[in-house]
Amino acid sequence: MSKPKDKAAAPGEEIMEKIVSLCKRRGFVFQSSEIYGGLKSCYDYGPLGVELKRNVKQEWWRAMVLQRDDIVGIDASIMMHPNVWRASGHLAGFSDPLVDCKDCKERGRADKWPAAEVGAEVAYKVVIDHKSGKKEERKGVVGKLGIVCPNCGSPNHTDIRRFNLMFRSSMGSLDPIDGIAQRLEGKSLQGEELRAVIAEAIGESAVYLRPETAQAMFVNFLNVQASARMKPPFGIAQQGKSFRNEITVEHFIFRSCEFEQMEMEFFVPPPEHTTPGERDDMGWFEYWCQERKNWYERLGMRPEKLRLRDHDASELAHYAKGCKDVEYEYPWGWGELEGIAHRSDYDLKAHEKASGKKLTYFDPVKNVHYHPFVIEPAAGADRTLLAFLIDAYTEEPPSEARKEGRVLLKLHPRLAPMKAAVFPLVKKEGMPEKAQEIVQEFLRQGIKAFYDEKDAVGRRYARQDEAGTPYCLTVDGQTITDGTVTIRERDSMKQERIKIEEAVQVVRKRLEE
Amino acid sequence: MSKPKDKAAAPGEEIMEKIVSLCKRRGFVFQSSEIYGGLKSCYDYGPLGVELKRNVKQEWWRAMVLQRDDIVGIDASIMMHPNVWRASGHLAGFSDPLVDCKDCKERGRADKWPAAEVGAEVAYKVVIDHKSGKKEERKGVVGKLGIVCPNCGSPNHTDIRRFNLMFRSSMGSLDPIDGIAQRLEGKSLQGEELRAVIAEAIGESAVYLRPETAQAMFVNFLNVQASARMKPPFGIAQQGKSFRNEITVEHFIFRSCEFEQMEMEFFVPPPEHTTPGERDDMGWFEYWCQERKNWYERLGMRPEKLRLRDHDASELAHYAKGCKDVEYEYPWGWGELEGIAHRSDYDLKAHEKASGKKLTYFDPVKNVHYHPFVIEPAAGADRTLLAFLIDAYTEEPPSEARKEGRVLLKLHPRLAPMKAAVFPLVKKEGMPEKAQEIVQEFLRQGIKAFYDEKDAVGRRYARQDEAGTPYCLTVDGQTITDGTVTIRERDSMKQERIKIEEAVQVVRKRLEE
Repeated sequence: MSKPKDKAAAPGEEIMEKIVSLCKRRGFVFQSSEIYGGLKSCYDYGPLGVELKRNVKQEWWRAMVLQRDDIVGIDASIMMHPNVWRASGHLAGFSDPLVDCKDCKERGRADKWPAAEVGAEVAYKVVIDHKSGKKEERKGVVGKLGIVCPNCGSPNHTDIRRFNLMFRSSMGSLDPIDGIAQRLEGKSLQGEELRAVIAEAIGESAVYLRPETAQAMFVNFLNVQASARMKPPFGIAQQGKSFRNEITVEHFIFRSCEFEQMEMEFFVPPPEHTTPGERDDMGWFEYWCQERKNWYERLGMRPEKLRLRDHDASELAHYAKGCKDVEYEYPWGWGELEGIAHRSDYDLKAHEKASGKKLTYFDPVKNVHYHPFVIEPAAGADRTLLAFLIDAYTEEPPSEARKEGRVLLKLHPRLAPMKAAVFPLVKKEGMPEKAQEIVQEFLRQGIKAFYDEKDAVGRRYARQDEAGTPYCLTVDGQTITDGTVTIRERDSMKQERIKIEEAVQVVRKRLEE
Repeated sequence: MSKPKDKAAAPGEEIMEKIVSLCKRRGFVFQSSEIYGGLKSCYDYGPLGVELKRNVKQEWWRAMVLQRDDIVGIDASIMMHPNVWRASGHLAGFSDPLVDCKDCKERGRADKWPAAEVGAEVAYKVVIDHKSGKKEERKGVVGKLGIVCPNCGSPNHTDIRRFNLMFRSSMGSLDPIDGIAQRLEGKSLQGEELRAVIAEAIGESAVYLRPETAQAMFVNFLNVQASARMKPPFGIAQQGKSFRNEITVEHFIFRSCEFEQMEMEFFVPPPEHTTPGERDDMGWFEYWCQERKNWYERLGMRPEKLRLRDHDASELAHYAKGCKDVEYEYPWGWGELEGIAHRSDYDLKAHEKASGKKLTYFDPVKNVHYHPFVIEPAAGADRTLLAFLIDAYTEEPPSEARKEGRVLLKLHPRLAPMKAAVFPLVKKEGMPEKAQEIVQEFLRQGIKAFYDEKDAVGRRYARQDEAGTPYCLTVDGQTITDGTVTIRERDSMKQERIKIEEAVQVVRKRLEE
């Protein structure tokens, strides 16, 4: 799904460009290290973005932890013992198939390159003079992988190399540069022998940035179960950064190298230990698929843009007993928003085997030890935020009631970065002071509100619509005499007069609905 | 302040051991990857710990961002462009002075090793037979660094090597192992030349984990200022993980390699552009020193355990115009809780020079461009959490009113991981059902509450005291007839009867105080 080259922008791309531009202009998302030219696929959340992201994460935590008595949270470190990644299979198997084009040097993932018929002769053009940009037409035969270069169309590429996606670092006072230098001092080595010596030196102090938060729930299973005295069915939830050295990053914050996950592992009795009449593992799998889809809808995402897609057998890991994606219809098409996987007892058993530590639950009523099955709803905070932004982004054309069109973010009030804006109609007659007082009352209660006196009120409304602020309050001449203000609702643009004392209550009530 | 060896535990250590043990047993903090033997100085927050940490972070965000109109937040990526760390000085200068003992191979920081008189002859013992543990007494002369090994007392050590504290990784599809192997294939190099070739290959794709969050506020200064339309004095706040490859980690979560910061950069007009009569840069520096100390006190930390310590000239960076630490009296003595630094205009100017991008504020009223001065209150979420835990930890001896002593955490209700526990007096007569109903009402409102029916009520109180839960509600026979429950306050142990309907309100009110 990478951006097609040399084509006019598709309608979906136009929308994305508008959203990316709004994100930067209004302070939702900036390119990381922008003044230094940016860092590939890393993004910084600005003043509005950080509040939106905090709200998304808080709503997830509220629904998954605070409002349930069967789920508890953890917050584990990003760096974990390297054996965690040996046991989970990430060190051996978490890799992309990398190929290089021999003609234009494009590097990419073999599974993402355009398909072509094996043995077919194809024509392609390569740049032969970088100054003039002159290209030469060549012909070649498609190899056994059946792919061509997405840049120049050439069928000539290297063999696939497996490229591990985990970011590796080094912990402790052993600098790998010293280790490598000591081993190679005055020696002349070649090929695999040379690589092995370098890898050994690096391996001495290697640590990895977690590529997912889930493993921390498995290795902490017993510590959590015992200290919080939980019994299956129960869940462990976590939010936090994960890192994947992705070769293909795409669609703004949809897929990037550094991202924030919201994962929950729900431990249920395996079928043979399920109490008759109670929900079994497959029942819990279906429950979580529905529950997670409902969560997006409850927060205002349009139901017609959401669907559940069942993975077919070829997509499933060998141990998985089922997997469904909550998909959203992004401007570039349907794509994953969240995955819900039935992971059986694979993870606990893998860590039990690798660590030599029992990872079973002891059921004192039935007097039996067992490995629970695991249902895992795994969402991403950045991707969820992006979907909410896309879903909320609305362009309203001019109408009879309104000469100018407008752009607004129809964000659920609980997600909106700012809950209210307060304007003085004019900058005199005590209106600014009164408006400031109202802002201070919001802030005192920890509700983010914004004071704005610049430009005409219409312009101020427009700015708040774009920021997704659900309510605008205006202080006018009448306020000074009778203590009322107008309150305008973002989506309907309806205005009414209320007492100043009610202003915070009206907004607060909407937030608690 | 490292742990003295071969000594009976000091009283402070005993307290720390009790707190660490409580943290593990009750699910506040676990060693990371414990089933694999743990990972040096990395910790995982368990079910109670994650809520306490979320509450600490939320209170900071509330005080610094949500309740103020002059501070906005950001959430920047952990990986930033390497030039950020060139400009900030971290790549060249953020290092520890590493030494190795030539006798026992102890490795450590020269500035942390015991001092000794230069030229003095000292006696020390080294293990000469590891099987029997047999030691030999030797003599040696203290070198020009004036230090001896903290383990064996030997004055024989290597020269100081500067060891950079930033964690280095590699981004993109260039694997450093390939890069080094290509450069060294069949070659025999030595010494500095060999090291330079290795460093060059690693440098091609090197990225660093941020050692502090502050730099993101500086490089995003203009994006934030313009999008949020802020004018000095204003602040940018951020919470997030930072990483330092510390050689010396100490005191549990006090100093570790992976930690969470809460930093705020407050940009103020430099003295020549301060409006007469308004607070100037030094005024803001004093303001933030007081304000930050007050924050801990407002959340219940004992004032006599807090103090402000002015840095003396030798501790100040060359550009700093002042620095004070909020110190707490930990069980091991007074130590840093938070630092407040007056950083002048050093950071913005450094990034302006390195990036070639102007980083000035344009004041439209005075028609002038200037570099604001920066006041930086920098706290750590983990260290703050530890100080709150230590401060709250209380052992009450038996008394006339209570035969058994108790351990309790006198945490401020807003910080407490769980806000209420609900018990049925006995497991019959509809009491468990009624108690569960009350728990559900708390959860519905997003207030974490806990149901417990195990053991005698006294034991249940004791468990909640240890978890810092401010209120326990008990459903008894009277509840079923008149709809009242007893509510017990943690610190005073006072009990009173209230209506069930009031229970949530009583707790909620305390949380909003």
